[in-house]
Amino acid sequence: MGPHPAVAAIRLAVRRVLHDVLNDHAPERLSPGGGPPGRATAPLVLVACSGGADSMALASALAFEAPKLGVRAGGVTVDHGLQPGSDLRAAEVVHRLTGLGLGPVESVAVSVGREGGPEAAARDARYAALDAVAERHGAAAVLLGHTRDDQAETVLLGLARGSGIRSLSGMAEVSGSGGRYRRPFLQLDRQTARKACMAQSLPVWDDPHNADPAYTRSRLRQEGLPALEKALGKGVVEALARTAQLSRDDADALDAWASRAGESVRDDSGLLECTKLFALPPAVRRRVLRRAAIEAGAPAGSLFARHIEEIDRLITGWRGQGGINLPGKVVAQRQGGKLVIRQG
Amino acid sequence: MGPHPAVAAIRLAVRRVLHDVLNDHAPERLSPGGGPPGRATAPLVLVACSGGADSMALASALAFEAPKLGVRAGGVTVDHGLQPGSDLRAAEVVHRLTGLGLGPVESVAVSVGREGGPEAAARDARYAALDAVAERHGAAAVLLGHTRDDQAETVLLGLARGSGIRSLSGMAEVSGSGGRYRRPFLQLDRQTARKACMAQSLPVWDDPHNADPAYTRSRLRQEGLPALEKALGKGVVEALARTAQLSRDDADALDAWASRAGESVRDDSGLLECTKLFALPPAVRRRVLRRAAIEAGAPAGSLFARHIEEIDRLITGWRGQGGINLPGKVVAQRQGGKLVIRQG
Repeated sequence: MGPHPAVAAIRLAVRRVLHDVLNDHAPERLSPGGGPPGRATAPLVLVACSGGADSMALASALAFEAPKLGVRAGGVTVDHGLQPGSDLRAAEVVHRLTGLGLGPVESVAVSVGREGGPEAAARDARYAALDAVAERHGAAAVLLGHTRDDQAETVLLGLARGSGIRSLSGMAEVSGSGGRYRRPFLQLDRQTARKACMAQSLPVWDDPHNADPAYTRSRLRQEGLPALEKALGKGVVEALARTAQLSRDDADALDAWASRAGESVRDDSGLLECTKLFALPPAVRRRVLRRAAIEAGAPAGSLFARHIEEIDRLITGWRGQGGINLPGKVVAQRQGGKLVIRQG
Repeated sequence: MGPHPAVAAIRLAVRRVLHDVLNDHAPERLSPGGGPPGRATAPLVLVACSGGADSMALASALAFEAPKLGVRAGGVTVDHGLQPGSDLRAAEVVHRLTGLGLGPVESVAVSVGREGGPEAAARDARYAALDAVAERHGAAAVLLGHTRDDQAETVLLGLARGSGIRSLSGMAEVSGSGGRYRRPFLQLDRQTARKACMAQSLPVWDDPHNADPAYTRSRLRQEGLPALEKALGKGVVEALARTAQLSRDDADALDAWASRAGESVRDDSGLLECTKLFALPPAVRRRVLRRAAIEAGAPAGSLFARHIEEIDRLITGWRGQGGINLPGKVVAQRQGGKLVIRQG
């Protein structure tokens, strides 16, 4: 009798990603004589684990699949220090990961700042810590337990910003420096991860933050998405995840176009020429303008669609208007057929 | 004392669109002697009116603004025949539109089929009737009362299909043959239209369909969107409407790219070359493949993302797989470095 279907599903997802990691690191693994890779050169893959169902399922699948592929499997848990006793819980997660046969396993304490709100600050601190651990161990990859449900929530959060398709593209299957972060469960639903833990009798820890209505993502998870499913049908989560993938590819293609166009619309001295900008499709022109503003020193995070629209009107609705003030003390103005964007 | 702010807002929105219509029809309006346009050449603009708040507000603003711009203003209401007494209601709407000073005003009865579900069938019948009326009167434009809230709902409905950014782009400000349909209220919220009716003491009719949970759009309006606003904040409707505009421009740019690419990836005999397809960005390649499938006879409405993904794997994941069966008895197969898509 094979494993429970949910366990089979999580293992398959992890096996695929491990194959990708091995392919990407193939040259490093070849031993000098061309023989099979030895213990010393076996790549290390870490799982980032909160102790919740998603990442515990991920850890269990990694522990099962890694040895079969000659991969070393370790784990790391991040103690955000946001609740009393979080250090004890981190120690408990280390204990459970070790119990799965993972090694090295460690807990890292971080201090969470305030920049960009509580969720963004915790995320920034977490990734900085994971980066440091991965580098210290020379890990080939760090697996993250984000599921298709997390992806759907991320798309809706991006939708609420109304800032275009890049913010609809959610999380990537591969991201971070050198493709360090991998998300094997991005096509898998949360329920499957939960079932896989039950089927393997793995104790899991429910983060109270996940149900805390102070967090936008929690409200979305508890109320927003269920209401949307009730109105639109059960396929909403899958549709949102598919939208993420399609939007990501579309945004990549348009960014590539804008990058080429950004060169071709400049005169010999590097200034943007208004007539050439005018001839671009609006979607490409806006990206060229956004890039130019960022290059001039406007902080990307403070540059909104309405700023770009205002610059765009210097091109498409020219009636002698003055300079446009942008974040970062950057000014965009039209001067004799050229668009000049600079810090002033 | 000026008009109520809501009334000012709806009038401004209509005035802008009338200016656009006049610009687009400028040559037709010039009288032979070059003098001001006479009564005979004054363009006619119709409002499509259900008797609900949005389209009654639109009708009132058209009646107010059109004479000032030398535009004739008429109205049409469509009797879908879906409820008992709908003919009486249509007659009542004609009466109200005439009372606003519009002319010609008429009611058109349509019979609604079943194709594509009740909402799509009613929409198809409605636009066919509006097209016929517009052509019979030689109308320069037909104004539609869709608001920003309708746009937000349309984006969410598109999101639920998960078929990419074209379906996120909602309704266009200008659409139909020769740009016949105009939506002056697409940036205005439903509440403003309602307030404008109250401020002008215009009686409005609440379509019971709008609250009928049998319709996806009604469920979205009554429950889905409010829950999303509760989770994500009050700016959701605006963010969705902005997403529509950005997605539309992005989709247009990518379609233009795919159209050019579709030519450049063919050999002398017009066959698609796999190596050239492989070199395209995935977003562009998928659009080229979709177009080729439709040209070969696959019905656009039955061609889903998963079909395109399967064709795409003939290019990006070639392992000798057989032909892919597509809707409309179209088959896509790889033959010696060429991708052949044809009905067979």
